[in-house]
Amino acid sequence: MDLQYALELIGTFFFAISGALAVQNREHDLFGAGFTGFITAIGGGSLRDIILGAYPLVWIGNVNFLYAIFAGLITTFVFFPLVARLRKTLFLFDTLGIAFFTILGVEKTLALGFRPEVAAIMGMFSAVMGGVIRDTLTNEIPILFRKEVYASACLTGAVVYLVLNYYGMGRNINLLVSISLIILIRLVAVRFKLSLPTLK
Amino acid sequence: MDLQYALELIGTFFFAISGALAVQNREHDLFGAGFTGFITAIGGGSLRDIILGAYPLVWIGNVNFLYAIFAGLITTFVFFPLVARLRKTLFLFDTLGIAFFTILGVEKTLALGFRPEVAAIMGMFSAVMGGVIRDTLTNEIPILFRKEVYASACLTGAVVYLVLNYYGMGRNINLLVSISLIILIRLVAVRFKLSLPTLK
Amino acid sequence: MDLQYALELIGTFFFAISGALAVQNREHDLFGAGFTGFITAIGGGSLRDIILGAYPLVWIGNVNFLYAIFAGLITTFVFFPLVARLRKTLFLFDTLGIAFFTILGVEKTLALGFRPEVAAIMGMFSAVMGGVIRDTLTNEIPILFRKEVYASACLTGAVVYLVLNYYGMGRNINLLVSISLIILIRLVAVRFKLSLPTLK
Repeated sequence: MDLQYALELIGTFFFAISGALAVQNREHDLFGAGFTGFITAIGGGSLRDIILGAYPLVWIGNVNFLYAIFAGLITTFVFFPLVARLRKTLFLFDTLGIAFFTILGVEKTLALGFRPEVAAIMGMFSAVMGGVIRDTLTNEIPILFRKEVYASACLTGAVVYLVLNYYGMGRNINLLVSISLIILIRLVAVRFKLSLPTLK
Repeated sequence: MDLQYALELIGTFFFAISGALAVQNREHDLFGAGFTGFITAIGGGSLRDIILGAYPLVWIGNVNFLYAIFAGLITTFVFFPLVARLRKTLFLFDTLGIAFFTILGVEKTLALGFRPEVAAIMGMFSAVMGGVIRDTLTNEIPILFRKEVYASACLTGAVVYLVLNYYGMGRNINLLVSISLIILIRLVAVRFKLSLPTLK
Repeated sequence: MDLQYALELIGTFFFAISGALAVQNREHDLFGAGFTGFITAIGGGSLRDIILGAYPLVWIGNVNFLYAIFAGLITTFVFFPLVARLRKTLFLFDTLGIAFFTILGVEKTLALGFRPEVAAIMGMFSAVMGGVIRDTLTNEIPILFRKEVYASACLTGAVVYLVLNYYGMGRNINLLVSISLIILIRLVAVRFKLSLPTLK
């Protein structure tokens, strides 16, 4: 099991936790929490693969992703009071997760032979659409439309990856640069409550 | 026309009626009611087939399903006061419908060569996602997230079917057992207002 | 570049503008407005192609559609006060757009070998589902369910196109008739505040 695969499973595990916790202020039962955790974890990658026609979807071709999600949900249910107190830690994991999944999504799209413009959008979709679908199902305004810089950080990182890739930068250093950039933008924006201007 | 096919058409007919009625307390016009009936009837199976890459979707490969939906919508419009008074009957048909479509979805997924873990999820999706999409479009909290045991009954029945199938139980008796189980769980939960615990 | 292709790009450009403007009364930032413009422009055709299994999706096979969207978004951002005052003009462009995309969607579905019943639904989906997805993501009641005649005008035009096509009417005159009919129904319904009856 190589490092990238291990990281993908770990990222899926944490996405499931953050998805299940997203509904804790509501009357959803355990099943509802598990369902939103599941959707959050598989939604973005599934939508990307459906749009690209890249079958089978990741979690259908490899059920270990389902087990990673299941482990995340069980962890949430069993250690709920503990996990709920770790929100700050989870925010960090979520930030690491979207940065990592963005660039993985870009690379997968390029590897399938699609254009870089498409890869940038699919990278962002991979990272954020799971949360968007979750928020839509639970009648929340998706995080994408709230003030914080979120999807725009992913899109920026995706574009930077593609530009550096175009100019021949090696993969490892490019991964490091673009993933770090997404994390940095997100952390700075949250820390200093930065937001993009609105259409007045 | 074999029995299973006849049951699928009948199930689609009733799903369209229950979908169209779901909006009756709102200002939706006839077209809106017809649209939600359509989405309710085809949504779950379509999402399952799109996720699995199983083309063509059922109602696209066989337009008789469209005619079953159309018949359900016309029935709703023409006999509206009568149909609306039959809510209890419709609840029974909805319960029969989700039980039946769950197991059909499980069997289709297995027949396409996918793993049982995937089949369990796709069985549940077949049954409930039409209603989830309908509720999302009409800004309702999906039934999935309300207190009643609904999707969890389907998932339970799907898992039981898969376990019995694994241990070699014959198809007919397995269908009978797992479909009855879903119906039983649902009826008992509604009758005694049972619900799963929530994340406190 | 033939006329139809040019019209498709222009229609995509205007759909992106109307989608971006749809959120102007809210706190969405520029990125959120751009995202909704993007979804509005590609949503209907993408959903049609995913349902039909017609890969690659239009904007993925031909990135000029992405550039048409990008141009629409930039136009909205740079000339915002001007564009916002042109709502009446945009209503006209939206009406032209849905009429045109409906019939294109019908023709594409027929060309792929699907049945006319499916083509009618896919024509309507092409035109209206981008807006429906946008409204759903932003927690609005989709325009489809509001009182105005909107999707029903598209469906009517699609059916008329199919009937005339069945009876051997030439393509050019059929396009003219069915597109004009959609526009006419929509304009008359808005002008005289007509609406379909509701389920009482």
